[in-house]
Parts: sequence; C-alpha cells; structure tokens
Amino acid sequence: MKTLLLNKDEVGRLISMKEVIAAVEEAFVAFSGGQVDQPDYIGIHLPPPRGEIDFKLGYYQANEVISMKASSGGFPDNPAAYGLPTNMGTILLFDGRTCALTCVMDGSLITGLRTGAAGAVSVKALARKNAKTVTSIGTGIQARLQIRAINEVMTIEEIHAWDNHPATLAQYKADIEREFGIPVVMAASKEGAVRRADILVTTTRGKGTLVEAGWVKPGTHIVAIGTDQQGKQELDPAIFRNAKIVNDSIAQCVTKGETWHPLNVRIITQEDIHGEIGEILAGKKPGRENDDEITIFDSTGMAIQDNTTASRIYRNALETGVGTFFEFFSQPAGRQHA
Amino acid sequence: MKTLLLNKDEVGRLISMKEVIAAVEEAFVAFSGGQVDQPDYIGIHLPPPRGEIDFKLGYYQANEVISMKASSGGFPDNPAAYGLPTNMGTILLFDGRTCALTCVMDGSLITGLRTGAAGAVSVKALARKNAKTVTSIGTGIQARLQIRAINEVMTIEEIHAWDNHPATLAQYKADIEREFGIPVVMAASKEGAVRRADILVTTTRGKGTLVEAGWVKPGTHIVAIGTDQQGKQELDPAIFRNAKIVNDSIAQCVTKGETWHPLNVRIITQEDIHGEIGEILAGKKPGRENDDEITIFDSTGMAIQDNTTASRIYRNALETGVGTFFEFFSQPAGRQHA
Repeated sequence: MKTLLLNKDEVGRLISMKEVIAAVEEAFVAFSGGQVDQPDYIGIHLPPPRGEIDFKLGYYQANEVISMKASSGGFPDNPAAYGLPTNMGTILLFDGRTCALTCVMDGSLITGLRTGAAGAVSVKALARKNAKTVTSIGTGIQARLQIRAINEVMTIEEIHAWDNHPATLAQYKADIEREFGIPVVMAASKEGAVRRADILVTTTRGKGTLVEAGWVKPGTHIVAIGTDQQGKQELDPAIFRNAKIVNDSIAQCVTKGETWHPLNVRIITQEDIHGEIGEILAGKKPGRENDDEITIFDSTGMAIQDNTTASRIYRNALETGVGTFFEFFSQPAGRQHA
Repeated sequence: MKTLLLNKDEVGRLISMKEVIAAVEEAFVAFSGGQVDQPDYIGIHLPPPRGEIDFKLGYYQANEVISMKASSGGFPDNPAAYGLPTNMGTILLFDGRTCALTCVMDGSLITGLRTGAAGAVSVKALARKNAKTVTSIGTGIQARLQIRAINEVMTIEEIHAWDNHPATLAQYKADIEREFGIPVVMAASKEGAVRRADILVTTTRGKGTLVEAGWVKPGTHIVAIGTDQQGKQELDPAIFRNAKIVNDSIAQCVTKGETWHPLNVRIITQEDIHGEIGEILAGKKPGRENDDEITIFDSTGMAIQDNTTASRIYRNALETGVGTFFEFFSQPAGRQHA
C-alpha cells in the first residue's frame, strides 16, 4: 500500500485560493446536507508556557474521505529554543472504503487557507453586490488571508485597517498594497474604520467587544472569524439584534462562536439564527434579501473544511505527479500476522 | 524538521517482546501514578459491511511523548476487493516539548504486541510462582501473542487450548509447538481445559459466559483480554465473587471491560476491585498473597501502552539507524507564512 507524502512547500503550490474556496463551499453544503460525520475534537493541553495540540476528525460520506488534522499552537519557546514554528500541523487522509492511509501532508497552511476561504464564501452569499470597501479589524496572518480570498470573489477598491500596534498596521498596509495593489487606509480609530465598511472582517484574538453596534451601517456584511472558543469575543452582542445571522455550524456557533454571546445575554434566541451557510449555498434558504440588512457570518471552523481542502490538494498531487510515495506495508492481504 | 518513517517490517524488527513487556509495565505504572493524559478516543463508524476507525491519543508526561494511534478494523471486503488487510493502523509520535511530529510508523503490529505483553505483565504480578500450565480459550492471533509474551516471563510446560472450530485449533497446536516447542493439548471440552489451568487466558470475541465459575480451581490466574467494549463477555460474573480483581484502568474496566458484568448484576461493587495493575507494579498494593486465591486481570487496553511501546521502537530505530527521514517542512522558524 502506497501513501503519498506532501511537504509544506508542495502543499502550498498544489492548490489555488480559488480551489480552496470551491472546496470550502463543497464542505459547507455537505455539512448542512447531513453528509458529514465530525466527532468532537480531542486534544492535550501541555503545561504552560506551552499551548495545546488538537486532533480534528471528519468523514465526508459522498467522496469517501476520512481526514484527521493534528494541529498544535501556542508554543512561544519553539523558535528560540528549538528552531521550530510556534504552530504546526499534520493532516492524514484515509480512503473511507478501506481505511487505508492514502496521504500524510504538512497541515500548517490549510487551517489558514480554509478559514480565509470561508470568509470569501460568505461574501459571495451575503455581501451586497455593490460592496467595494473592506474593513479589517486585526492585521495578522488570517487578516491577510481573508483579503487574499475575498479578492478572488469581488473587486476590493479600498481597505480600512485597524490594529492597536501601529508598526504591525504599517507592515500590513505595505504587504497588502504590494501583493494585491489594493490601497490600504490605516484607520485613526476603530469606529471610523467600521463606519466605512461594506464588509467588516474581524480576525483578532479579542476577549471583549471590539466593534460597537452603533458603528455598523445598514447593508454591512460582517465576517466574524476570531471567536472559535469560549472566552473569545469581538462583536457587541447588540449587533445581532436585527441582523441576519448565519453560522458555519449552528451546533458549534451557539456553544463557542460569536453567536454564543448574544444568546448568553438573551439578545437573541436560537430561533433568530437564519441558518447555516451551507443551507444558503444549497438554495434551501435565502442569502441577502436587500441592500439594507446587516448580515453576520460566524465562522468557528470545521474538520470538513480541512477534509475537502486536503482532498483537493491530494488529487492535484496525484494528477501532477507531485510528492513522495512511501510504503508503510507491503505484505499481500490475507497473510497478515499479529 | 525531520520526521522518521517506519514501515511494518521495520517496526516488527525494531522491538523484542521483552522490550514490549517492559514498555507496558512502564505504561501501567505511569497511568496509575497520574503521569498520563488519555482523552476519550474518537472514531468513525462506516456503513456496513465496513467497520470502524478509531483515534486514540495519549500523553506521557515523564518522557514528553504524545502518541496518536489510528486503527481501523472490520473491513471484510478489503482483501478480495482491494488487496488490503481487514485491519490497519498508523501511529504518530509528537515531541511534547514542541509538538513537532517526530515519527510516523505503521501501527498494525503494536496493538497486538502491547496487548500480549499486558497479559505477561499480569502473570508476573499475579500468577502463582509454581504455575506451569496455561489454558487458552480462543486460538487466534491474540491467543498466540499471549503465549509469546507469557513465555518470556515463565516456563510454560503445557498448554490446554479450546476453540469451537477444530481446524483452527489444530492449526494453533501446530503453530505453537513449532514456534515455542511447548506441547499443546487440544481440549475435548472447555470445562476440562479450564480445570487444568494455572493460568487461564481468554481472547475470544465472546458475547456471553464462556467460562463457568465452578470450573475455575483455586489459585488460578485469569487473563481476561477479549472484553473491551459493551456487549462483549467471556467470564461467568460469579467468578468475580471471591476473586482478587485487578484492572488495567478502573475507569475503563467498570464501563466496558469484563469487570462491568459482575458490577451490572451486583455480584460485586466497585469497592471489591483490588486495584490497578500499575499500583501493584509500583508496590502500592499487594499482588498475589497466597496460592489459593483466584486472581483476575481485566485488560481493556490503553493509549499509553501504544505510547510507551511506539516510543521504544522509535528510540531503537534512531539508535540503529533504521527507517527513512522525511522533511514535512524546512523553513527556518520565524519565517513561517500563513
């Protein structure tokens, strides 16, 4: 049995952002259509200052792929003490028909890519067709990937960016303008940036309200990325009061997403959630219905996004002959011992 | 960062049964000593006739190794339709200090080896010092591995074996006599075989009482292997009434081991469990105290046994230069993107 090995450089070269967006759309439709088995993830918390390692498992029934992503994060001593990144990842793919291990690939790029793509998928489904400006609260790696992905699905005329570290903000402006040629305005205030947004993207590690309800103009589409566990928060819960609320997974968002906060303070009930993005993509529920409504996409991230993205990378590798095969066993079937 | 890849043949050559036994002893002591983090396992059940794939995670704090074993089983169509075994496995090892992926090895041998070794560890701790005969109820792969392991810790003079398939039983006799030179008596009845046991090993996929209480003579040590989930059973619950009951993990055995059955019918309460094998190995609790007591070791299997066994294989590979290194990424730390 041959298993394909893909290193990080190969993974990065094997997929375009357009393909990641298509893979994430497929993931959302499959999930909301009941074609996905995603058990709760398991993990180990290491003693401080170390972070954690999580294992996320997903089975996509329609294409018979089982994926397992091991991802570690929050190891501040790794670079200096060990010459290693603070975050690492590995993805295993198994053929669901046999459970043979078909692929082991570096997984450090995929979480960022599929999360960026999720924002773009929501922009296609929920932003105004005449949207021109994106406001980015947060200027880290995921903020850049959001721009990279959204830039594939619309023409961004201007970006208003805010960060509480001026040097980081200036670097973001320089990088985005060089890479995409989109002018970036370094916002003097969060409020000013939010008021200019057609699309508002939040990608911070926030632990409280960063965006107040009064700042959000009618017609804004909000891509809420940063909150994927209890204790994180970016939006004033009051923003949810009259907004069209869309989740990647309702089950996840109501327990650990941005959507948990307005539920917790009883600004909304679960019945006020419009639906899952996959239902909109499948045509089962409407997306944006007029130019005045505020739409919110709450992204918590799902194993099935890793699954469809990694599957596309694997298929592209086979088609283009990229990667290294390794035989974990060679014994003919029926002659196994022990 | 370099990751060591080990195929099945290499795994098989890299460790002796003596080393597996030592690794499993270490695992039991570490577990009962609170040095282990083993979250509940997660898995996917495939549609019939396919089986399942499980992911078992363990962190051994003292030696800073995190292990994840993916193991699939119950795919009857694999050999004919795909030329693959019905059961497969893969083990990942991570350095707990950084969460770097240090090793990917075939995992199809390790479950069998560490389960066999568990029986031998219990024989050292709980069987009579003058034990000579082993009775084997079940004659499959695990029954053979029990003999291979127990043969490392005592001199077996005779084996009484029972199986309800005469051809399987004859093959077991031929294989064991050839490999170990130990005479095997093909039992005419289960009762007769059990009555002759100094050590009774049960390794069936039984779903009811296979061994009756009246057959078990004083001084017998029972190695109960087959029951590792609800619905499986091998022993008459009445055997537990006056026996010294030892578990690998009390938490697991009382919910899905052989020990669940006498608890369920109230023949015993949890207070009647003598302790965990790791407590006995660590000298915190006595093992066998006289030649008349019946001792029962209930083995449900733990991720930490995979962890310490795979760690020993990995260390042996590094020391002897066996295996293939693969670089999943080569970028210097601090220059990671996305």
